[in-house]
Amino acid sequence: MVTLEYLLAFIEEDAPYGDITTQSLTGGDSCQGTLVARQDGTIAGLEEASMLFSHFRIDFIPKVSDGMDVSSGSRIALLKGPVAGMLLVERTALNIIGRMSGIATRTRKIRSILTSHNVTCRIASTRKTAPGLRLLDKKAVALGGGEWHRLGLSDGILIKDNHLAFQSIEEAVGKAKGSNPYHKIEIEVESPEEAFRAAKAGAAILLLDNMQPGKIRDTIRILDEEEIRGGLLIEVSGGIHEGNVLEYAIPGVDIISMGSLTHTVENFDISLDIVPSEK
Amino acid sequence: MVTLEYLLAFIEEDAPYGDITTQSLTGGDSCQGTLVARQDGTIAGLEEASMLFSHFRIDFIPKVSDGMDVSSGSRIALLKGPVAGMLLVERTALNIIGRMSGIATRTRKIRSILTSHNVTCRIASTRKTAPGLRLLDKKAVALGGGEWHRLGLSDGILIKDNHLAFQSIEEAVGKAKGSNPYHKIEIEVESPEEAFRAAKAGAAILLLDNMQPGKIRDTIRILDEEEIRGGLLIEVSGGIHEGNVLEYAIPGVDIISMGSLTHTVENFDISLDIVPSEK
Amino acid sequence: MVTLEYLLAFIEEDAPYGDITTQSLTGGDSCQGTLVARQDGTIAGLEEASMLFSHFRIDFIPKVSDGMDVSSGSRIALLKGPVAGMLLVERTALNIIGRMSGIATRTRKIRSILTSHNVTCRIASTRKTAPGLRLLDKKAVALGGGEWHRLGLSDGILIKDNHLAFQSIEEAVGKAKGSNPYHKIEIEVESPEEAFRAAKAGAAILLLDNMQPGKIRDTIRILDEEEIRGGLLIEVSGGIHEGNVLEYAIPGVDIISMGSLTHTVENFDISLDIVPSEK
Amino acid sequence: MVTLEYLLAFIEEDAPYGDITTQSLTGGDSCQGTLVARQDGTIAGLEEASMLFSHFRIDFIPKVSDGMDVSSGSRIALLKGPVAGMLLVERTALNIIGRMSGIATRTRKIRSILTSHNVTCRIASTRKTAPGLRLLDKKAVALGGGEWHRLGLSDGILIKDNHLAFQSIEEAVGKAKGSNPYHKIEIEVESPEEAFRAAKAGAAILLLDNMQPGKIRDTIRILDEEEIRGGLLIEVSGGIHEGNVLEYAIPGVDIISMGSLTHTVENFDISLDIVPSEK
Amino acid sequence: MVTLEYLLAFIEEDAPYGDITTQSLTGGDSCQGTLVARQDGTIAGLEEASMLFSHFRIDFIPKVSDGMDVSSGSRIALLKGPVAGMLLVERTALNIIGRMSGIATRTRKIRSILTSHNVTCRIASTRKTAPGLRLLDKKAVALGGGEWHRLGLSDGILIKDNHLAFQSIEEAVGKAKGSNPYHKIEIEVESPEEAFRAAKAGAAILLLDNMQPGKIRDTIRILDEEEIRGGLLIEVSGGIHEGNVLEYAIPGVDIISMGSLTHTVENFDISLDIVPSEK
Amino acid sequence: MVTLEYLLAFIEEDAPYGDITTQSLTGGDSCQGTLVARQDGTIAGLEEASMLFSHFRIDFIPKVSDGMDVSSGSRIALLKGPVAGMLLVERTALNIIGRMSGIATRTRKIRSILTSHNVTCRIASTRKTAPGLRLLDKKAVALGGGEWHRLGLSDGILIKDNHLAFQSIEEAVGKAKGSNPYHKIEIEVESPEEAFRAAKAGAAILLLDNMQPGKIRDTIRILDEEEIRGGLLIEVSGGIHEGNVLEYAIPGVDIISMGSLTHTVENFDISLDIVPSEK
Repeated sequence: MVTLEYLLAFIEEDAPYGDITTQSLTGGDSCQGTLVARQDGTIAGLEEASMLFSHFRIDFIPKVSDGMDVSSGSRIALLKGPVAGMLLVERTALNIIGRMSGIATRTRKIRSILTSHNVTCRIASTRKTAPGLRLLDKKAVALGGGEWHRLGLSDGILIKDNHLAFQSIEEAVGKAKGSNPYHKIEIEVESPEEAFRAAKAGAAILLLDNMQPGKIRDTIRILDEEEIRGGLLIEVSGGIHEGNVLEYAIPGVDIISMGSLTHTVENFDISLDIVPSEK
Repeated sequence: MVTLEYLLAFIEEDAPYGDITTQSLTGGDSCQGTLVARQDGTIAGLEEASMLFSHFRIDFIPKVSDGMDVSSGSRIALLKGPVAGMLLVERTALNIIGRMSGIATRTRKIRSILTSHNVTCRIASTRKTAPGLRLLDKKAVALGGGEWHRLGLSDGILIKDNHLAFQSIEEAVGKAKGSNPYHKIEIEVESPEEAFRAAKAGAAILLLDNMQPGKIRDTIRILDEEEIRGGLLIEVSGGIHEGNVLEYAIPGVDIISMGSLTHTVENFDISLDIVPSEK
Repeated sequence: MVTLEYLLAFIEEDAPYGDITTQSLTGGDSCQGTLVARQDGTIAGLEEASMLFSHFRIDFIPKVSDGMDVSSGSRIALLKGPVAGMLLVERTALNIIGRMSGIATRTRKIRSILTSHNVTCRIASTRKTAPGLRLLDKKAVALGGGEWHRLGLSDGILIKDNHLAFQSIEEAVGKAKGSNPYHKIEIEVESPEEAFRAAKAGAAILLLDNMQPGKIRDTIRILDEEEIRGGLLIEVSGGIHEGNVLEYAIPGVDIISMGSLTHTVENFDISLDIVPSEK
Repeated sequence: MVTLEYLLAFIEEDAPYGDITTQSLTGGDSCQGTLVARQDGTIAGLEEASMLFSHFRIDFIPKVSDGMDVSSGSRIALLKGPVAGMLLVERTALNIIGRMSGIATRTRKIRSILTSHNVTCRIASTRKTAPGLRLLDKKAVALGGGEWHRLGLSDGILIKDNHLAFQSIEEAVGKAKGSNPYHKIEIEVESPEEAFRAAKAGAAILLLDNMQPGKIRDTIRILDEEEIRGGLLIEVSGGIHEGNVLEYAIPGVDIISMGSLTHTVENFDISLDIVPSEK
Repeated sequence: MVTLEYLLAFIEEDAPYGDITTQSLTGGDSCQGTLVARQDGTIAGLEEASMLFSHFRIDFIPKVSDGMDVSSGSRIALLKGPVAGMLLVERTALNIIGRMSGIATRTRKIRSILTSHNVTCRIASTRKTAPGLRLLDKKAVALGGGEWHRLGLSDGILIKDNHLAFQSIEEAVGKAKGSNPYHKIEIEVESPEEAFRAAKAGAAILLLDNMQPGKIRDTIRILDEEEIRGGLLIEVSGGIHEGNVLEYAIPGVDIISMGSLTHTVENFDISLDIVPSEK
Repeated sequence: MVTLEYLLAFIEEDAPYGDITTQSLTGGDSCQGTLVARQDGTIAGLEEASMLFSHFRIDFIPKVSDGMDVSSGSRIALLKGPVAGMLLVERTALNIIGRMSGIATRTRKIRSILTSHNVTCRIASTRKTAPGLRLLDKKAVALGGGEWHRLGLSDGILIKDNHLAFQSIEEAVGKAKGSNPYHKIEIEVESPEEAFRAAKAGAAILLLDNMQPGKIRDTIRILDEEEIRGGLLIEVSGGIHEGNVLEYAIPGVDIISMGSLTHTVENFDISLDIVPSEK
């Protein structure tokens, strides 16, 4: 879980011996801060920032909630407390909000593109997150309107090409079902024929990986013709991003998953403006 | 430091209860893997990947070294060992290499742009790194040809606007020099006049923050005219990126620092292709 | 995952300042040890014991494998090395093997009872494990022939009465399906009527909790009559143990889950006999 | 020591990525809970449960204290707070209370058997505890009326057969006394003759291990005859349990120690009943 | 940074299984304590002691502040709370205050010797601190009026003889300046000639290591004559202590650094007097 | 226990971001080092230093063993390996050896003073160790020929004045004996009368704290006269050091304990001389 201790490790990383500049320059001065969005987008990371600032005795009063859309110039939160704590946490908090809001903003944008074309299929992230930031990255995706997908190797079955290098689709699905009564079996397939075999073997989710839109359409058509769709979920992935997502929003596709949601993050621009407290 | 224990925490994050798919599907099979670049760029993260794979008894034979440029399709490393370990480490290792190589590639590219225009000023990263990844992000910048700048709040003096809200430039520089005989004093300034005052007060590095190129030229001209340049270093920052970096490569600028080097990372595309070992 | 570091914490617990008796009494003597089963049963925990002994430079040569049945008096493993390391690890290793083999032995026994009555339904453990020993307890269940079920709150959806106190079955299943496309939805029900409603709402697994065998039969009959069984899995739980498990092995029951497999563990009796090494 | 951090690791074990069911199903609902004993026995673990619930902002009002006897149906504690925290902690808290109360209940029962036969000798646990739960297991024994004995290898001298394989009783006791002026020397003996030699060599506690009651009587008689009893403590151990403890309650025995107190634990049945808070 | 968690590890070291004496002897008694100086000197460590006592719910009311001079018999702080917590923390807190005040007292004394001779040069500590206590030792030096110098290998450049074994002074200074635009370059030199070369190569701080006072004077004279002093700082070190520090307080020396400030610490005598609280 | 991980935390403390000087100056050069004593004394800490150097792939060949006396100029160990690892570990290893050898040397010296006067009583350290260094400090005392005494609050019973503030000597000893059959009861007394009462109540060790030698003689005489000495151990403490230890070496005193052995440590002077490896 995202605990205070987990977040404090980021402060320790930034300041193993404390903030030597601020130690030289300020006594116990107290100050007020305003967190201001410097771009339009979707905010995420406020809960985490709040935990950190509060730990160092800074009052943190959010003016918006995680997951809300804001416009450039909006005040996101008001802060108040000793300047030493404020400056100790500042950069770490901004780095967290910047990354998480960047992820949420991109996800929301893709979600909006689909919605505006009346596409209701889900969008999902992958395990291509920054090392050590899995939960923050996934939470940001969810705040933006996407799905978590697997959180890691321990909470979902996904049979990939590397597993299939050692056995047939039928064998793999059979073994996985046999040992995992509590899990849905998802399997990566690369052709309509593989999709058909996997569905027949009893997979619950087909991940059509790196297929071109045309091939995806073919696959769905064949599954429909063979009357094997049932509760089967169809997920597509592989090089999909904001720019080409509509091409993959094919009828019959349930989920579009995109590594780019978390592996290529555009920082959300946000600043913390600090003034001395009036006496 | 980047220790094995630090890297293993990323595996634990991905697999708190192990890799349940692979546990269901493979016995003690062994396999061979090839790490292949899927784009041109500068490689980083191989040392870290090697530590992880080796810990799980996978032979890891690099074909290139961190910091080398590769072209799409190049074989980066050969791997060999039990499939369970290979798949356990795969995604984490790719996430590390993908992020670090992404940073190194962008840094190298900007470095090349400057060099091809005969600009020799340094480029530096900032503390705008992913939380928990400071050392990996900074190492990637260095491999790409950039500077680390401060690693955190404990290893350098940087007086920022937030400090100046509580005291004058002269006071701040004076106090910082007084308490820190072992450090160079760097200070953020926003106008030629502030730059002049800071230089006169004895700062060693001026960080011209968020100044337009014209104002930067003015500042340098004034410092030259006042004959106060001496060993003074001039650093510029604020919204600088690949697209506009040449505008800031002004004669007299010693360092261009860019948060974008680490806060907005484009993942480097790399894959691990696995085949069963021949018997 | 079960790492060396995880296991070493058990040694630190036992010997925060080292083994003061052995420090007083032996120099660098070396010795040989034999791990001997003192009862019939199924062995588990050898892999973990081996990791610990090896870390303290004791050669550990297993004579049987985890999951094998042994009879009282069997030699389980041969050990050799410095007496100080042998005695430092001894109790911790025996505690691990004793608990894990105890769990594996009970699970195997129940599995055998069912098999000898030609019952093929699965048996599963629950989250009622010793705190901090989830993975060891679950691994022992698997070695004995049982299922892991959920490893924790993060890797499976299980709607329980406490969730239903806040919403109807239909609402709960609907919300859970809506937010968790990748998971099977399991739900705890207490009557045939609830079972029917849950199945109709789309649950994939029904956990008939604390139902008497008669009521379980009724529930299955009704589901069959309503032709709503399909791929639905039926799990039963609540006060089931070795003594009454056959009463719950009702046709149509897919899984019998028992907290008692891990919450009430009978230690497996095993000893480590040590003799000085011949010179 | 048993710290909050130690207990929180159990929550992290259960929910590395949080409680995904409850996240899907409830908002910020608040609820009331009642901890109810489902059997007669001695309660232990409330202090630990209270620390965990409080950390997640659940009010925890105990109605009984650790160490008190309760009857089936008794309300043990009242709880109140957000349902998310309640369900996150529920299973871990019940696992702690279930195990600790199970140990306390068994210990209290054996204590009562002895007391009802006017036997005043002490009962003690051993180091045969669940790995990682030494302090909780020992605390439960104490709450039930037993002794802790050694907490580990660092806080007591106990010369065992494995030490005597390398030296004579006289040598071992001599060396141990020589290096440990601050500790009582305890030694494991297997015959009256060994007991006599150990007592003469200066041991303070004799652990008669795996001796039948008859042999124990012989040993005590010989020690008495040789007038070597003095302040010597006699402890017996080896296969003693609830069923045969009275046979070992021989006059002259000071302590009966039983591995079974902690290595074979019967879970105490307790439940947490939750209802929505009235508005 | 010095966090509560860092300090609590010292309590865990002292009491892995709790305070067994106090557990045997006191119930929930409460008491009052007085921290009393048993010698004259400079107090340090109160902030750390306060964090520990407060964590165990002891009210801690300081009567003096860290860095203040006190005389023998002075009351340093008043404490109030449960006796169990008081005695658990007592020794650890006294060990912290005793060491830190010992360091602060010696530093203050040397500072006073210099001041009383109108010497204004700085005194600095080195990395010769107790392992694990770097920040506490350095903080105590600062409270006594000294400088921190480098906190470790990561926050300053210091070229030592061991580096010069592999390259010339000119090469080393050149490389260091080239890779570290943000740091002052300090270099250890052993002769006037080396000092001159280092200064010419661009070093910012010369550390005259193990030079006799006469040679130090020569070096400064030569640098002055060569008009190469500029902003150069001169630091001297090597076997300097309270007894001979004045010999090194040579005009032109900016900093005297002494390993003895932290590697050879005389404990400050302080006691905690405890009385039962009046009812 | 003293583990590699425990020691590596000292390196992390010294170099959170690595050794920035050496990174700038050396490539993969390899070198040879010689650890040389710069004073006479007793060596301790080599085992710990060896663990650290070996971890960083430096060959460490000890020429003497921990606990041996050496004279100034002696070669203590030879080292060989990459210069980066050598310099990374150097200061930490020297700090460990310097402190531990300082403690061992002082202990050995006091031991020798007593021995040369034919005094055989033991000398012991206390819990006045540097925070976090308990085991290293105690080990150094043992290597010098002293006793460990209690390692902490969990492994011995010591009734102090602060406990007696809440109850009489008789009550305290009674309660302690009652709850701790496995421990010797030690009690701090301040007068002959208290000593007599404590002995009569059944204490096993009397700690005569802060008594003048005359009063100690009186106490021993009274105990002898009352024929209550038996196996009773007499320990004296309070302001005893190298300079006055002989005054306390009174016939009948079994142990002299001295906080000064570990709270006021004189660093042992040792250096690591490094030269480039010949090619």
